Amino acid sequence: MAKITPISGFPEWLPEQKILEDKIVNTIRAIYEAHGYTPIETRSVEHMSILASKGDINKEIYVIQRAHADQLEVSEETLALHFDLTIPFARYVAQNFNELSFPFKRYQLQRSWRGERPQEGRFREFYQFDIDVVTPEELPLCHDAEMISIIAKSFQKLGLGKFQIKTNNRKLLLGMYEHFGLNLEQRQAAVIIIDKIDKIGPAAVKAELGKEGISANIADEIIKISGLKLKPSEFEKTAAGLGPKNESFMAGLREIKEVLSLVTESALPNVVVDLSLARGLDYYTGTIIETILTDYPSFGSVAGGGRYENLTERFGSKNIPGVGISIGITRLMSLVISKGLLQADQYCPTKILVALNSAEDLKRSLSLAEELRASGLNTEVFHKPLKFGKQIEYADKKGIRFVLFLNDAGTLELKDIKTKEQQPITVAELVIKLS
Amino acid sequence: MAKITPISGFPEWLPEQKILEDKIVNTIRAIYEAHGYTPIETRSVEHMSILASKGDINKEIYVIQRAHADQLEVSEETLALHFDLTIPFARYVAQNFNELSFPFKRYQLQRSWRGERPQEGRFREFYQFDIDVVTPEELPLCHDAEMISIIAKSFQKLGLGKFQIKTNNRKLLLGMYEHFGLNLEQRQAAVIIIDKIDKIGPAAVKAELGKEGISANIADEIIKISGLKLKPSEFEKTAAGLGPKNESFMAGLREIKEVLSLVTESALPNVVVDLSLARGLDYYTGTIIETILTDYPSFGSVAGGGRYENLTERFGSKNIPGVGISIGITRLMSLVISKGLLQADQYCPTKILVALNSAEDLKRSLSLAEELRASGLNTEVFHKPLKFGKQIEYADKKGIRFVLFLNDAGTLELKDIKTKEQQPITVAELVIKLS
Repeated sequence: MAKITPISGFPEWLPEQKILEDKIVNTIRAIYEAHGYTPIETRSVEHMSILASKGDINKEIYVIQRAHADQLEVSEETLALHFDLTIPFARYVAQNFNELSFPFKRYQLQRSWRGERPQEGRFREFYQFDIDVVTPEELPLCHDAEMISIIAKSFQKLGLGKFQIKTNNRKLLLGMYEHFGLNLEQRQAAVIIIDKIDKIGPAAVKAELGKEGISANIADEIIKISGLKLKPSEFEKTAAGLGPKNESFMAGLREIKEVLSLVTESALPNVVVDLSLARGLDYYTGTIIETILTDYPSFGSVAGGGRYENLTERFGSKNIPGVGISIGITRLMSLVISKGLLQADQYCPTKILVALNSAEDLKRSLSLAEELRASGLNTEVFHKPLKFGKQIEYADKKGIRFVLFLNDAGTLELKDIKTKEQQPITVAELVIKLS
Repeated sequence: MAKITPISGFPEWLPEQKILEDKIVNTIRAIYEAHGYTPIETRSVEHMSILASKGDINKEIYVIQRAHADQLEVSEETLALHFDLTIPFARYVAQNFNELSFPFKRYQLQRSWRGERPQEGRFREFYQFDIDVVTPEELPLCHDAEMISIIAKSFQKLGLGKFQIKTNNRKLLLGMYEHFGLNLEQRQAAVIIIDKIDKIGPAAVKAELGKEGISANIADEIIKISGLKLKPSEFEKTAAGLGPKNESFMAGLREIKEVLSLVTESALPNVVVDLSLARGLDYYTGTIIETILTDYPSFGSVAGGGRYENLTERFGSKNIPGVGISIGITRLMSLVISKGLLQADQYCPTKILVALNSAEDLKRSLSLAEELRASGLNTEVFHKPLKFGKQIEYADKKGIRFVLFLNDAGTLELKDIKTKEQQPITVAELVIKLS
């Protein structure tokens, strides 16, 4: 007999939780589609040569192998599960380049896998919901602004409380570090170190900067400036007064300014320019975006992304710049569930339970249900003539709000479980009431 | 530089194909939800002990392992990708038994993986879209009928041409073989052999029956009766005249008759009782269902399922009978694509492309797009002031039917790419026209 043991890091939801996840996903999908993004999916696996193109095999990657193989030897041809949606998307664009129309705006909702140690908000199997726009030529900054607008609309609509969208620009950061006399390597290192300031604190950041050969004075300066969190309205003046005038800094300043000018008005109150923001990944080159739920700051970013110069670099294709964001659906769900942020019963897809009076009534009840379905009402017939209390209990537990009784005379009564009201009703009235 | 090489058996779709797949999935989902099914998903992996509970390791199972492991040893605790949705569903029901309300009607759309040799209509990674209803007590036959009604509605709505739903009942088959004097083992074997008659032909079936010790005369009788394909209206009379009167045969006859009486009227013209139908899987005990697209008979079944006695047997739980079906989404898609059965352009989620007149017009165009989105119209702004011909070409290639031009005076003109008409329009008129 097979024993059921939990598998850490591979979450599963109960039906009422899955309905919440669908609700979240559908809300975001509608916003993505409202802005012209079209769906794609990639296969779950890539060749190891693509996932580990720099030669090093990330120990978090899961490889797959047919079970009868005696021994697993990881080679370039080994299949492995993707650990994000960006590398598969890059491969997809390079592979289908001639079939796609550019700018290519795609959304992608899929699971990814990482064999890391599970902890709060980190999973081994998880859904991400990404958008990216890429084009094999110059990509205007209106797309960067759109990413911020879309995050704002999504979280305004999701109803998970207050949120803040942090943005910054890698060029601004690198220009600032150049201004302080850091060499190229130190600048790149400083970007990654400064990004950790919220997590490890200023003292640890200073120590790490010191290890890169950056003096204590300059480290203090960098840390001080990184503490700036500027409203869109005050950004330009403050940033211009910071001192640096070099090309990279000024380009970053201009880009942030233009992006902010193109973000939708209703998003702006949620936006802050955070000069410590850099994101750990090394492929970002311009705009950087992260999002936190203000009521749960320690939970970390729930949506982030940025701009990159060349999506398909690893495949040797021509330059394809892009900008994209990723919303961590499974992370969000783990928060929604642990904090009870959303309630499921209102989203149950079933509208009506037709109660079954007697076994002889089954056909009449099925016909009635068919009539309601034809009018667009999701309807289920209870399958046994149990006591009505039991049937109502089933509806309530499943999240079906309305129970319909078919009387012997053919008349109907509708019970609203929420208000506890019960009243005579006709099919026509029912359709109007519940559509 | 990473080389892109195809991975056989792991299909991917172009954006316009993915839109078709979504269309198919959404059509089926709406019908599932109309009948009271609620969504769940299970994780992609199970312990090997669950997937191979009978001790034998199916060589088609993919195990997963972190890439740094030197050697893969398959044990009971090894994680492996599921190869269908039935075993994970059974595990989910057993695991969450106390949290679920019964009858538990769930739908599940997920990928599965099988390391088999890819061939037409068979993939290593594929989507299935399943429904099952289970309950830890007697499960009325109205659910079996609902499965047939749902398949009929789905394929009527999908528009993939004519289809036929074949049904049969294991009890009827086993009773018939009992009547011919077959012992218990021979009956079980005959069920599986007869199911192959369409694929391997009567001569090969006869030979295989012979190997089970079944005489040529009886084999001929069985093959002859298996050739019967009965309309619902003629089933009862013909079946009752076949000769067998034993308990199993009569139970099968009664069950088929009751199921047919509960199937929706509009489904019946597509239903045939096929006395050769058995399905290869050994857990079916009553109703059996398969579906073929009549124009592509050699493609095999596109939707099938049946009734089982005890879903969670392998976990030692109490008896949980159920009935379910599975629609092979990836198989259907491969047919849709290879035969060009559906056209994508009408399903592109983007309704309108706002053409960009000049760089200075960007903000006005973005505002206009926001206004249209607020009215529920999915709208994209072209990001560069290219020649209008280029912008229209982009819309056309992406499947966006309408292009909106914003004149200097603030007036609008709408071009319908399909009819080639272009006319002045207001936002209010546009919303009415395209909503």
